Amino acid sequence: MKYKVAILGATGMVGQKFIQLLENHPWFEISGLMASEKRVGKIYGSEVDWIVSERVPENVSEMEMLPMDPRKVDADIVFSALPSDVAKDVEARFASHGFVVASNASAFRMEPDIPLVIPEVNQEHLKLVDVQKRNRDWDGFIVTNPNCTTIVLVITLKPLMELGLKVVRMASMQALSGAGYPGVPSLAITDNIIPFIRGEEDKVETEPLKLLGSFDGEKIRFADLSVSASCHRVPVIDGHTEAVFAEFEKDVEVDEIIDAFESLKPIADLPTSPERVIIVRDEPDRPQPRLDRDAGNGMSVVVGRIRKDGERGVKYVAMGHNTVRGAAGASILNAELMVKEKLI
Amino acid sequence: MKYKVAILGATGMVGQKFIQLLENHPWFEISGLMASEKRVGKIYGSEVDWIVSERVPENVSEMEMLPMDPRKVDADIVFSALPSDVAKDVEARFASHGFVVASNASAFRMEPDIPLVIPEVNQEHLKLVDVQKRNRDWDGFIVTNPNCTTIVLVITLKPLMELGLKVVRMASMQALSGAGYPGVPSLAITDNIIPFIRGEEDKVETEPLKLLGSFDGEKIRFADLSVSASCHRVPVIDGHTEAVFAEFEKDVEVDEIIDAFESLKPIADLPTSPERVIIVRDEPDRPQPRLDRDAGNGMSVVVGRIRKDGERGVKYVAMGHNTVRGAAGASILNAELMVKEKLI
Amino acid sequence: MKYKVAILGATGMVGQKFIQLLENHPWFEISGLMASEKRVGKIYGSEVDWIVSERVPENVSEMEMLPMDPRKVDADIVFSALPSDVAKDVEARFASHGFVVASNASAFRMEPDIPLVIPEVNQEHLKLVDVQKRNRDWDGFIVTNPNCTTIVLVITLKPLMELGLKVVRMASMQALSGAGYPGVPSLAITDNIIPFIRGEEDKVETEPLKLLGSFDGEKIRFADLSVSASCHRVPVIDGHTEAVFAEFEKDVEVDEIIDAFESLKPIADLPTSPERVIIVRDEPDRPQPRLDRDAGNGMSVVVGRIRKDGERGVKYVAMGHNTVRGAAGASILNAELMVKEKLI
Amino acid sequence: MKYKVAILGATGMVGQKFIQLLENHPWFEISGLMASEKRVGKIYGSEVDWIVSERVPENVSEMEMLPMDPRKVDADIVFSALPSDVAKDVEARFASHGFVVASNASAFRMEPDIPLVIPEVNQEHLKLVDVQKRNRDWDGFIVTNPNCTTIVLVITLKPLMELGLKVVRMASMQALSGAGYPGVPSLAITDNIIPFIRGEEDKVETEPLKLLGSFDGEKIRFADLSVSASCHRVPVIDGHTEAVFAEFEKDVEVDEIIDAFESLKPIADLPTSPERVIIVRDEPDRPQPRLDRDAGNGMSVVVGRIRKDGERGVKYVAMGHNTVRGAAGASILNAELMVKEKLI
Repeated sequence: MKYKVAILGATGMVGQKFIQLLENHPWFEISGLMASEKRVGKIYGSEVDWIVSERVPENVSEMEMLPMDPRKVDADIVFSALPSDVAKDVEARFASHGFVVASNASAFRMEPDIPLVIPEVNQEHLKLVDVQKRNRDWDGFIVTNPNCTTIVLVITLKPLMELGLKVVRMASMQALSGAGYPGVPSLAITDNIIPFIRGEEDKVETEPLKLLGSFDGEKIRFADLSVSASCHRVPVIDGHTEAVFAEFEKDVEVDEIIDAFESLKPIADLPTSPERVIIVRDEPDRPQPRLDRDAGNGMSVVVGRIRKDGERGVKYVAMGHNTVRGAAGASILNAELMVKEKLI
Repeated sequence: MKYKVAILGATGMVGQKFIQLLENHPWFEISGLMASEKRVGKIYGSEVDWIVSERVPENVSEMEMLPMDPRKVDADIVFSALPSDVAKDVEARFASHGFVVASNASAFRMEPDIPLVIPEVNQEHLKLVDVQKRNRDWDGFIVTNPNCTTIVLVITLKPLMELGLKVVRMASMQALSGAGYPGVPSLAITDNIIPFIRGEEDKVETEPLKLLGSFDGEKIRFADLSVSASCHRVPVIDGHTEAVFAEFEKDVEVDEIIDAFESLKPIADLPTSPERVIIVRDEPDRPQPRLDRDAGNGMSVVVGRIRKDGERGVKYVAMGHNTVRGAAGASILNAELMVKEKLI
Repeated sequence: MKYKVAILGATGMVGQKFIQLLENHPWFEISGLMASEKRVGKIYGSEVDWIVSERVPENVSEMEMLPMDPRKVDADIVFSALPSDVAKDVEARFASHGFVVASNASAFRMEPDIPLVIPEVNQEHLKLVDVQKRNRDWDGFIVTNPNCTTIVLVITLKPLMELGLKVVRMASMQALSGAGYPGVPSLAITDNIIPFIRGEEDKVETEPLKLLGSFDGEKIRFADLSVSASCHRVPVIDGHTEAVFAEFEKDVEVDEIIDAFESLKPIADLPTSPERVIIVRDEPDRPQPRLDRDAGNGMSVVVGRIRKDGERGVKYVAMGHNTVRGAAGASILNAELMVKEKLI
Repeated sequence: MKYKVAILGATGMVGQKFIQLLENHPWFEISGLMASEKRVGKIYGSEVDWIVSERVPENVSEMEMLPMDPRKVDADIVFSALPSDVAKDVEARFASHGFVVASNASAFRMEPDIPLVIPEVNQEHLKLVDVQKRNRDWDGFIVTNPNCTTIVLVITLKPLMELGLKVVRMASMQALSGAGYPGVPSLAITDNIIPFIRGEEDKVETEPLKLLGSFDGEKIRFADLSVSASCHRVPVIDGHTEAVFAEFEKDVEVDEIIDAFESLKPIADLPTSPERVIIVRDEPDRPQPRLDRDAGNGMSVVVGRIRKDGERGVKYVAMGHNTVRGAAGASILNAELMVKEKLI
């Protein structure tokens, strides 16, 4: 018997990715696709502008789209691929009606009683769920995953914390799929770079402090770390590449860094968990988004070019699949963790 | 009467750019195109794989290519677009035979008695020419311009020096033309980023120290500055984009930074000098290489997204045309300055 | 004294191109920019998403946008870059109020009493203006130019008509700018081709028959020719490339075809007219959109790869700038011709 | 027990694709990788510039490369991904030494006694092998597959032959991978089309006549058909798109054409055979290379936009994966057929 899952925002880029990743999922099966008012009642396969593979998977192609109304949805878990402004109301509505919401939206990420989770980084933050339910008097609850750029970055920062990480500066080269569909016009990005992504730097500079913080039984104490980001859009379909400059309290060696990266453990027994959370490549010209984004079925972060940067610094390049590890796959992994932890 | 100029390495990407920029130059006219052994005696227009515009300019199309032999060349100035390994011998040979060599090659840039010059940044370094001629017993001399990525960066760093600039971290997104022709294979870079450019980071981390240093009458005292670079290739034809994180000794404000950028003065009366050396854009999404690379006929550096980065830091994005301001135009501007300074 | 010109649809891709081409026009100066309801009263430079060059030209940057109301506009000529559905009403309104409308929209192109004109192809069709004014009882009149793909094709077909052209099959590879802005999403076209452009094939198959037809004093008698098109979108910014297979009534030789192409004469004394209407390239790999689209300031059509195709056929590749020769430049050239012919 | 297969030209683009497709092949296992002189003795994984996926498959990564010498190779089948000029000698040498050579090279395709085969189109041509062995006194033999563009085209032409197909005109939009690696320079094709591929049109115009011809017991009688091609390179990684104009002897209807396409049967029980040889899509904007090239694991040809073209004509767009169905997959399918037919 599989858990029933429903998807909020099923027609967008991340919604499509949820559907693709859930097509043959061993634990979850799609029981509902929710869309905005004007699409309710329409057939998913006829309505969606499907862009992520050859065809809409058969299991959802004939589904009639449902309203974003908790009373009309039959599901154990609700995945949310909603834009943030819509998510605020809709996710709360579902949580208050008893649903477990695994959300990719930014609306609730920084709320003190909402867990913001990457399983391999801070699974103990799930305990915030009790606080949340107590605070909000909801029958269900919301668990969020971070922004796509944050996830790739923080997975690499986590193992560096014990080495005395203090300041992180990061310049990103972000894929087109991060802007959704239709998203970036081709005339804007062909033979071009756009050195700006609205709201992105703020997310990347704040979310890591919560993710790398510690749960004290009541709330998250933010990590003592400074993160500065410069975010840029590049003409790449999938895969965010990040050039990271990391400063430490004390001397660090490249070998220590590699060891730290490779020691980050996957969560055992979760179907979406990759064999290796971080893959370190030693070729001088890796990671590359087109070649590396599908590593670990899109769930591994690939790191390369690790080199000293002054006495107390290193620099490196990290890359991860922004709509898998950075979005739909992140929510699904969170849901799997919640099943394992008996939260569902 | 125009000065006669000859071009070493005339068939490559930068060689083509020299020809394009010199087509209607008011001071210079092309008197010779030098190429490698196997092309000597061939007609330029039939031999070159011309890629920078519709057609090979008429003034050079029928020229027979010359050997890289000073005795066969009649010119007041020799521009060099040679690869570094070839440049070492050839440029020295021309200089020793009395030619003024304005070189874009890296071979001599860091030699203590060879000027490495950006006119608006360190024109006084041209005085090294006397030291050079004395040291080397050459009748001519060599003046170099920096690496393309360095030039764009250093033009923005120069006005920040007085504000107490201490540490610079920079992540570049570099254009395809920087790798020459054929250069980067399309299969390597379509829907992709390559996070590595051989030798580039080393140049970008050392050349600025010389450029921003001071001439003490005998040699250049290097600037007290630390530069760290992470260099990446992106699918853009022309225009290097650079995300800069700058740390200062003391607090700085965005307004001071803008004032500093806008106060960098062009050299008066040089034909290739742009009206504005640095153009500051206040739109949130500029500079963009495709839209901004031709600003100031490709000789302006365009800066945007200037924002605070902690108390003592700022971050910004700079962009410049890598084969104009960053290569052929740089050498031509140096030559113009030498004419003005009566070195030619 | 220059003629005053106003632009309908000034913020779109073609509207921007009108502004760019008119910036320093010797005969015309922009007196008004008309936009849709919600933009009326706003400042052009702040409102437009300017995408065709570094900056909005100064002469229009501060203009307040006007409604599409003939009573509010002071102009000798109105250029229309409207979408077809809007054009139907608006252009008629302007023409009935006495304006000369030079339109790039498709709304009126195939109306029997509306001239559809490419100056070098069928300038005598301008005589339809008298019929039009008589029929419609308008004080002004409308003159249209063809679809962008049609223009490039028909300029090459015109000189072939005398050689007995009978059947034309054409497969196009069309640039992104033809779809306007935002137009084609980057996710739809990166590493991809879209083999469909709505409504395009129908235009390309019918407009040539009118353009190549003859005016009998009352109406256009359509040319006896069959045109079949297959239209495809490719990841190219500007420049439509067309692979043409042409069948004739009798044997033709490549030399005749070349002579015919090169004999097509420009209209003398029009500022926007190129020196050569068709440029024949003999290199095996031309025309190429990026290298050739600016030939003749974007007003030449470049042809290459002319080769026999059976006894009575030839095939060749034609390429032209779709937003210059194929849109804004086409309308401007028509307007210049009307000035020369004293229609304005 | 699997058949041992060795690959000639293992480091190139098609060689890599052979390795990728053979990684877990149920019938074949790689026993040798042959490369040019300078690579012999080197380790494949260290030497190859692997570009088709994240990593070189483990089964070949540590293999030492062999010379192209039949005495050094242990294999039941030799796959050839050699360039044509090298193939001429090398493939003959292997065939004369008793090897079965399944070749993707063009060297022998049009030789009268060498089968040129697409299993679903003309499997009976394999009988030429007897003629070949008799003629050439070889212990082994060569079987070739067509050019990548030809394959996609001919698979769609085969079912049309019975409807009276007479003349085919085809304009291709071909992927970068067709030019091998490094192949097309990025500076040549970014924001561009190259309307020329050396030798391609000649292959596409002649190979179909052999493929669609009939074996009369001694030789192939060429089909009575005229094919004209115009071949163009576009910035797409994989997947050749072809706009086809087909003329018939008599009236044809779109429904007949669809039925014909869908009736082309796959060869039963071959592991690489797709479920559907031709997939007809009825959406107006398909096929698209990025979305459709992996249909049938890259072995299906996807057809769309089928429409009348005059009374006796139809036009349509076909697309197939050029390095799978059009190259490595084609040779492997031929080898599988030979196994089934007991030729191996």
